[in-house]
Amino acid sequence: MTEKKQSLPVNGAIGVFDSGYGGLTVLSEIKALLPQYDYVYLGDNARAPYGGRSFDLVYQFTLEAVQWFFAQGCPLVILACNTASAKALRTIQQIDLPHIDAQRRVLGVIRPTAESVAQLTHNGHVGVLGTEGTIQSESYIMEIRKLHPQLTVTGEACPMWVPLVENREYDKPGADYFVQQYIERLLEKDPQIDTIILGCTHYPLLWDKIRRFTPQGIQLMSQGKYIAESLKDYLRRHPEMEVRCTKNATVDYYTTESPEKFRRSASLFLQEDIHAQKALMESNR
Amino acid sequence: MTEKKQSLPVNGAIGVFDSGYGGLTVLSEIKALLPQYDYVYLGDNARAPYGGRSFDLVYQFTLEAVQWFFAQGCPLVILACNTASAKALRTIQQIDLPHIDAQRRVLGVIRPTAESVAQLTHNGHVGVLGTEGTIQSESYIMEIRKLHPQLTVTGEACPMWVPLVENREYDKPGADYFVQQYIERLLEKDPQIDTIILGCTHYPLLWDKIRRFTPQGIQLMSQGKYIAESLKDYLRRHPEMEVRCTKNATVDYYTTESPEKFRRSASLFLQEDIHAQKALMESNR
Repeated sequence: MTEKKQSLPVNGAIGVFDSGYGGLTVLSEIKALLPQYDYVYLGDNARAPYGGRSFDLVYQFTLEAVQWFFAQGCPLVILACNTASAKALRTIQQIDLPHIDAQRRVLGVIRPTAESVAQLTHNGHVGVLGTEGTIQSESYIMEIRKLHPQLTVTGEACPMWVPLVENREYDKPGADYFVQQYIERLLEKDPQIDTIILGCTHYPLLWDKIRRFTPQGIQLMSQGKYIAESLKDYLRRHPEMEVRCTKNATVDYYTTESPEKFRRSASLFLQEDIHAQKALMESNR
Repeated sequence: MTEKKQSLPVNGAIGVFDSGYGGLTVLSEIKALLPQYDYVYLGDNARAPYGGRSFDLVYQFTLEAVQWFFAQGCPLVILACNTASAKALRTIQQIDLPHIDAQRRVLGVIRPTAESVAQLTHNGHVGVLGTEGTIQSESYIMEIRKLHPQLTVTGEACPMWVPLVENREYDKPGADYFVQQYIERLLEKDPQIDTIILGCTHYPLLWDKIRRFTPQGIQLMSQGKYIAESLKDYLRRHPEMEVRCTKNATVDYYTTESPEKFRRSASLFLQEDIHAQKALMESNR
């Protein structure tokens, strides 16, 4: 067996990628549901936020990250970033992956959310709140229509929400104006909406305010739980990938920024103190 | 003379650098005062904002930008970004420039501002509002103390102001809370302040609100004019550099992001429509 080692599929940790800290909210849910696996988290904090960046740039940055995860030996990478999932995932899956390593997989967060939303809405009117990049890409609209053509989907960009979260203003009075504004704009576009997808991994931190400014009858859908359940289901349906995911219950945190800065800010999104390491990618070597 | 050409100092446009769009407010003032020169503007919009990034990263990004300007033939580069001036200028001037090209110069925006503030304050109590990076570096405090040891300088970071400007919220009601908050915090630290430096090139767009929430007797100091005057004075004192600055009254705009996106957003900071080109740097080639 030894001489064949190089041609065997690699085994390793599950990669979880985000432009910054938001993906940590997804990682928490995944770890809670699937604690046995090893995980490698990478935040591209040196170049965050991705939300307002162009298609080409989000694609370039995300592809670099995927290649970094592969170099760490990850057989499976989750893009726990809606902007990256919206703007880069399809091209990476269809164009890049077959050339880089056809035996590895990259999954996003939009499809699992789109799959689950039909179980929540009663009247078929769904709203999506996300970054400019996510909303402009219309990825949620396309993905939901493909799976559930009977649903009406309306999006609204919330460009101030990520800065409010990252600057720890999410539970202070200054956030009210912007939380109220984007929700009102969404509901003006479609007053029948009964379910709103929080389509950015930062938004769970704004949950209390979003709930306060959303009419009672409307359900809010936070993604983490659905992404974790979808991953569990994926691993069940793909035993050939499941056996390649190592199981020592470890989590390694990497950032393209200063590890100390990452460690301090990560505490906002995780209920534990962590150790972080610097990720050396092509562009910050 | 021809065979000696390679050893001659290069002639070219004056480089003006900012992490994003804010430096355009400085470029406007420079162009108004010194319209005869050629300028090359570079916005590192692919990696903006710099305000909250670590020292190492701001230094790395700024050094890359300086090398890009040198590759374009610029003999002189202005870092029209307070964060880059605060965190990268000194190292670039003292450590890098002697190795790269001792005949070129890189200037910042903190020193010209520090030089001029003493003429404005009556009681010697000066406040500085800037990004987290600028304030944490204490560059204004050190620079002003060196030049004017009699002044008392107090800083306050305003991390929400750049997102408010870049998301075009600077003249809307949602900005009020954050404008008022940072000014109040600054004046709580030193109630005697009679002059406030707006130490970030984005802040001139918030001028009306900053003025509204600042007590009448306190002067606000916007940097653009002082940086332009300081450059004029520098070129007068350094004729050997002045002759190397070409004079065809042109401006070329470059960005590390999508040029179309840059063009659209630049209109916020400039009163004219411009053409922009993609800058290919080490990390986005």
